[in-house]
Amino acid sequence: MLHEDRPVCILGLGLIGGSIMRDVQARGRRVFGWDRTQSTVTKIIDDGFDASNDCSAVLERAGEEDALVVIATPMSTVGTMLDHIAHHAPTCGITDVVSVKQAVIREVRARGMQDRFVGGHPMSGTSHNGWDASQTGLFTGAPWVVTFDNAPTDDSDGGRWLREWMSVVNLAYDVGAEVIPARAQSHDAAVARISHLPHVLADALAVAGDKGGALALSLAAGSFRDGTRVAGSDPGLTEAMCENNVEEVLRAIEEVQTMLDEARASLRATPPTVAELADAGHRSRIRYEARTGKRPVLRLHPGDAGWVDQLKQAENLGARIEVF
Amino acid sequence: MLHEDRPVCILGLGLIGGSIMRDVQARGRRVFGWDRTQSTVTKIIDDGFDASNDCSAVLERAGEEDALVVIATPMSTVGTMLDHIAHHAPTCGITDVVSVKQAVIREVRARGMQDRFVGGHPMSGTSHNGWDASQTGLFTGAPWVVTFDNAPTDDSDGGRWLREWMSVVNLAYDVGAEVIPARAQSHDAAVARISHLPHVLADALAVAGDKGGALALSLAAGSFRDGTRVAGSDPGLTEAMCENNVEEVLRAIEEVQTMLDEARASLRATPPTVAELADAGHRSRIRYEARTGKRPVLRLHPGDAGWVDQLKQAENLGARIEVF
Repeated sequence: MLHEDRPVCILGLGLIGGSIMRDVQARGRRVFGWDRTQSTVTKIIDDGFDASNDCSAVLERAGEEDALVVIATPMSTVGTMLDHIAHHAPTCGITDVVSVKQAVIREVRARGMQDRFVGGHPMSGTSHNGWDASQTGLFTGAPWVVTFDNAPTDDSDGGRWLREWMSVVNLAYDVGAEVIPARAQSHDAAVARISHLPHVLADALAVAGDKGGALALSLAAGSFRDGTRVAGSDPGLTEAMCENNVEEVLRAIEEVQTMLDEARASLRATPPTVAELADAGHRSRIRYEARTGKRPVLRLHPGDAGWVDQLKQAENLGARIEVF
Repeated sequence: MLHEDRPVCILGLGLIGGSIMRDVQARGRRVFGWDRTQSTVTKIIDDGFDASNDCSAVLERAGEEDALVVIATPMSTVGTMLDHIAHHAPTCGITDVVSVKQAVIREVRARGMQDRFVGGHPMSGTSHNGWDASQTGLFTGAPWVVTFDNAPTDDSDGGRWLREWMSVVNLAYDVGAEVIPARAQSHDAAVARISHLPHVLADALAVAGDKGGALALSLAAGSFRDGTRVAGSDPGLTEAMCENNVEEVLRAIEEVQTMLDEARASLRATPPTVAELADAGHRSRIRYEARTGKRPVLRLHPGDAGWVDQLKQAENLGARIEVF
C-alpha cells in the first residue's frame, strides 16, 4: 500500500460521501466536495471542510488538481454526474459508492468512460442518512468492494486504468476498509442474496405478522424482532437496491419461493416435515458463523503477470487483498 | 392475585420445566418433578431440588398432594404423559408448556381430560436446552399464554375448571410472567406468524445466502446476520414447531408467497418497483415497534358474569390480564 497524495473530490456529501470526507481529511489528504443543498454545504464548511454547491466549479477544480472523483449520489443521478464529469473534468479518474455495480457500469460504458472508471461499494451504513449522520471511522474493518471489469487485457492504455484502480484501492485503505475485489455481476448477485433479499423477506415477514393483529404483535419476540429489523429502515433504500438490481433480486426471490414451495409440500405430507429446510438452513447459518470475521487474505502486486487472475481468485474466495 | 400453596409437579426438567422449578422453589412453594434421564435427576438433586426418574411414583405423589401437574416434555410425548397422569394422578389439575396449543388440546380431549386441563405457553427461551440451561428469572416479564377453550358455559362442573385455570394463572404470576389469555386456535395462528414463520424464512434466507458462495458470505452484514439468526438454533425446534402447527404455518407461508409473487411481478414491470411491499413492510414494522413494551392491561375477576367475554376481549387486544 502506497501513500497517495492525489486529492479526492466527492460528489454528494451524505452519510457515505461525508464519512469518506471526514476520514480522508483526518489523514491529512486534500479532499473537497459538492452537495446540491446549500444549507448542507454551509453546515459542512462550518464543520471545517471544503465544500461547495457549484458542481461545475468543483469538477473544474478536480480536473486542475487531477483529483479522484467519487460519485456518492443515489443511482438515479449517476448518469447526470457522469455527464457533468465528462464535461468539466474530462481527464479525472472516477469511482462511485453505489450499492449496485452493473447499473453503474452500464452508465459508464454508455459514455465511453470505462478507461478511467473503477467501481466501488463500501458496505457500511447506519439507519440514518445525510451529512449529520456522517462520522469518522465508519468504514473501519468494513468490506469495500472494488470492481475490475474494465481491467485491460494488455497494456494498451499505458497503465491508465491500473493507476485508477490503485487510486480507488488506496482510498479504501485510507478510510480503514478491507478491499474485496469483485466483478460487477458477481457483486450484484452476492448482494442480492445477502442484502437485498433480506430486506424483501423482512418486509414480507413484517406484513405477515401485522396481519395477525394485536395478539400476534403482543406475542412477538426475538425471532420476529430480528427477522423484521431492516424493515424499519427507509423503504426508499430497499426500493433503490432492488429496483437497480432487478435480475439478481428476482433470481434470489425465486430461489426462496422454490424452497417455500418444497417446505409446504413436505408439510402437507404424512407425516408432515420441514426437516430438509430446517437442517439446510441450520448448516448454512453455521457455515456463515464459522466464516464471520475470518475473511481470507490474498497478497498481490498490481500489474504483475497474472494479477487479474489473482483478483478473480480473491473474488471467488471472498478474500480481501493486500497490495505490495 | 392469590398466593397459592398447591404444590407443583413438573414432568420434564429441561430449560422450561427446570426454570419453572427454580422459580417456584425460590418462592417457597413446594415443587417436585420427574425427568427421564437418571444422570439429570442426580444433578438436579445435587442442586437442591426434589426430583426422581420414577414417573409413576412422582405422579402418585402428585395425586396425594393435589399438585398442579405441568407437562414440560416435547409435543411428541404429551399423549404418553397424559396417559400416565390418567393412570397415576386421576384427579390432578394439568397444564403444559408446549409451544403449540391445538395439538395438545386434541390429545387432552381424546382422553376426556378437558375439565381439568388448561393449556399454557411461556414464551421465553434461550438457544440452549436442558437442566443445565435452566435459570431463575427466565420468565420475568415474558408473555405466558393461558388458554380458555375449555371454559364451561355454565357452572355444571362446580367450578372445577375455573379452579384449574386460576391455578395455572397463579403459576405464571409466581414466576413473574405476564398472562395473556388466548384460545388455542388464536394462539397457534399468532405464533405461526411471529415465531414459526420467522424460523422458516431465516432458514430459507440462510440457504439462499450460502448458495451465493464465499463472496456472498464474505460480504454479508447486519441484514443477513439478523435475518438468519434463528437458523442457528436447533433445527429440531423449528421442526417441532412447524410440524405440530401445520395448518397455521401453511397459511402464513402462503401469505408470504403471495407477497413475493406480487413483488416479482412489480419488479418485472416497467419501471421496476417494490414500493408496495417495501412501504407495507415499513409501516408494519413501525406499528410493531410502537407496540413493543406497551402491552395493554385488562383487569378482571375470574368467574364474574361475562368474564369469559373479557378473556376474549383480552385475546383480541393481545392484552395481559390482572386478576383480582
